[in-house]
Amino acid sequence: MTRNSAQPERGDARNLDFLSFGELKALLARIFRHAGASEAVAECLAANCAGCERDGARSHGVFRMPGYVSSIASGWVDAAASPRLEDVAPAFLRADAMNGFAQPALALAAPALIEKARRNGIALLAIRNSHHFSALWPDVEPFAEAGLVALTMVNSFACTVPFDGTSAVFGTNPIAFAAPRDGAPPLVADLATSAMANGDVQIAAREGFSLPPGQGVDQDGRPTIDPKAVLDGGALLTFGGYKGSAISLMIELLGAALTGGKFSYEVDWSGHPGAQTPHTGQVLILIDPDAGRDAAFAGRARALAERLGRVGVSRLPGDRRFRQRARSAAEGIGLVPADLARLRALAGPA
Amino acid sequence: MTRNSAQPERGDARNLDFLSFGELKALLARIFRHAGASEAVAECLAANCAGCERDGARSHGVFRMPGYVSSIASGWVDAAASPRLEDVAPAFLRADAMNGFAQPALALAAPALIEKARRNGIALLAIRNSHHFSALWPDVEPFAEAGLVALTMVNSFACTVPFDGTSAVFGTNPIAFAAPRDGAPPLVADLATSAMANGDVQIAAREGFSLPPGQGVDQDGRPTIDPKAVLDGGALLTFGGYKGSAISLMIELLGAALTGGKFSYEVDWSGHPGAQTPHTGQVLILIDPDAGRDAAFAGRARALAERLGRVGVSRLPGDRRFRQRARSAAEGIGLVPADLARLRALAGPA
Repeated sequence: MTRNSAQPERGDARNLDFLSFGELKALLARIFRHAGASEAVAECLAANCAGCERDGARSHGVFRMPGYVSSIASGWVDAAASPRLEDVAPAFLRADAMNGFAQPALALAAPALIEKARRNGIALLAIRNSHHFSALWPDVEPFAEAGLVALTMVNSFACTVPFDGTSAVFGTNPIAFAAPRDGAPPLVADLATSAMANGDVQIAAREGFSLPPGQGVDQDGRPTIDPKAVLDGGALLTFGGYKGSAISLMIELLGAALTGGKFSYEVDWSGHPGAQTPHTGQVLILIDPDAGRDAAFAGRARALAERLGRVGVSRLPGDRRFRQRARSAAEGIGLVPADLARLRALAGPA
Repeated sequence: MTRNSAQPERGDARNLDFLSFGELKALLARIFRHAGASEAVAECLAANCAGCERDGARSHGVFRMPGYVSSIASGWVDAAASPRLEDVAPAFLRADAMNGFAQPALALAAPALIEKARRNGIALLAIRNSHHFSALWPDVEPFAEAGLVALTMVNSFACTVPFDGTSAVFGTNPIAFAAPRDGAPPLVADLATSAMANGDVQIAAREGFSLPPGQGVDQDGRPTIDPKAVLDGGALLTFGGYKGSAISLMIELLGAALTGGKFSYEVDWSGHPGAQTPHTGQVLILIDPDAGRDAAFAGRARALAERLGRVGVSRLPGDRRFRQRARSAAEGIGLVPADLARLRALAGPA
């Protein structure tokens, strides 16, 4: 999530502790291992979460670590699960995350998926029985770095009211897209089809912010700007009225019906107090633009980006993250000392 | 386009002339042939346009016929073009519409595309050098009737301002999606990523309606509710703010960069007075849900649709069109006599 995000407060940079990406990743991996994650899962999720923090996507950065730990402790998600991959058709892979996280399943599938996309022009990965508690852009960006176009969609738990409906059926159902671009980082968009991302509502609640109007309803279905009312039995609305709702419907069908996973409204975590990681289904489509015999794709993407800049568009999807990534590489990743202390406590004895 | 549509006025049903689908299609085919279309193109477009009128999608129905005729007469589009198909990878087809309409290119490609999707699990068709002047749902619905999931996107001519930008770069850039559903017609969504569809702006201008606020800007970039100001040098906004703009950006990249076609801002029809058919690129992705070894897809789609009904959603995407189609089959397709007379005049001597 980028614009409209209620980011965690950080205060003055002079009061921050700075870690390198490697240091932060190692600390987060210790936390995951201490919580019960396998070595492979800990490495995968630590890289993902540290990457979000590094890139300034703080609603999916270290802010999420207590939620990961709590969810693993509740037994809701299996952080030691080994995903299973099934090659079901020349351009179609299925992955069963075995009630573990989606990212290790994607990491397992990625080499075969890339090979299928390069051979066939397009390929699809359907992940089921998975948990996704991070941003979606880390799932697509590496494919664009490899010259491919990637599109992914995830359904989750019922927290979003369909247009014209009275109670939540859809998840926040994000969609992310990445495309290679000559001479610049890829174009990478990531957006919830709910009016806001859940992480941003959680941050607003924690920090005491109000929501903009039109984002959510309370438990009685009445419009509210109180993030706590949205989280406590209320729900989000879809973005863009009936159009966003139609896209969210598509994501439910692809994330659950196509993968063989659960619809958002079928997810019941009431037996797992402390559970915070959404049980999800995920579809990822890779396209090889060179298969169209038009190797100019990345150059054309650059031309479009330049045109957008000439009409005043100040920031293209992904730009802010790449800028922050460069800054973090130079200066380190700044954390509030109290947050860093909390992370060290979560990591257990050294 | 469904909701929010400014539909043409029709008045009292007692004053309408009723035609069967076959009669309307034959009349429209005569018009296309008289305008210079080949037999194959005339049959294809007449079925498409009569189908829109039959289904109550009147912003893409017979209202469009003068635009088709004017555009063909201007030399902007070649209604006698024969599209060419290239099989470039096991799951990737390209079509060059040869400056003709997109629908004949899609019709040519469809059998091979279905076969590729069934064999590989997913397949992509990239159409370039095409014109698309109709709704998108007719392009995806037949695939869902055949048990496949279909997704398509089209870019067009610069008439939509990107979020944070000052002038038009994107087209209305619609996206359509269709999925099979047990025991009911497929779920079929079709939406412009501009705040409104161009056809609806044209109808509002013709009928003297104002637009809702927040849909468009005038030639100086100022917000306006005057449809004529939007059409006369002004532009539409994207739906859903920066999120709709990100989706429109994806559609530009897929519709133009992937297909080898033109970006919306590269289309220049100034040398063809009377031209009305947008020069487009189009991507269509077919997924075989059975490839996921989950033949239950259509049953699961039905379960989701039923759940949406239970929370008060009164109309699912496509529902209104299927209801109107049934009514038209029973009662005929009602046309205002003056409109029917205009169509007969366009058809030339019998």
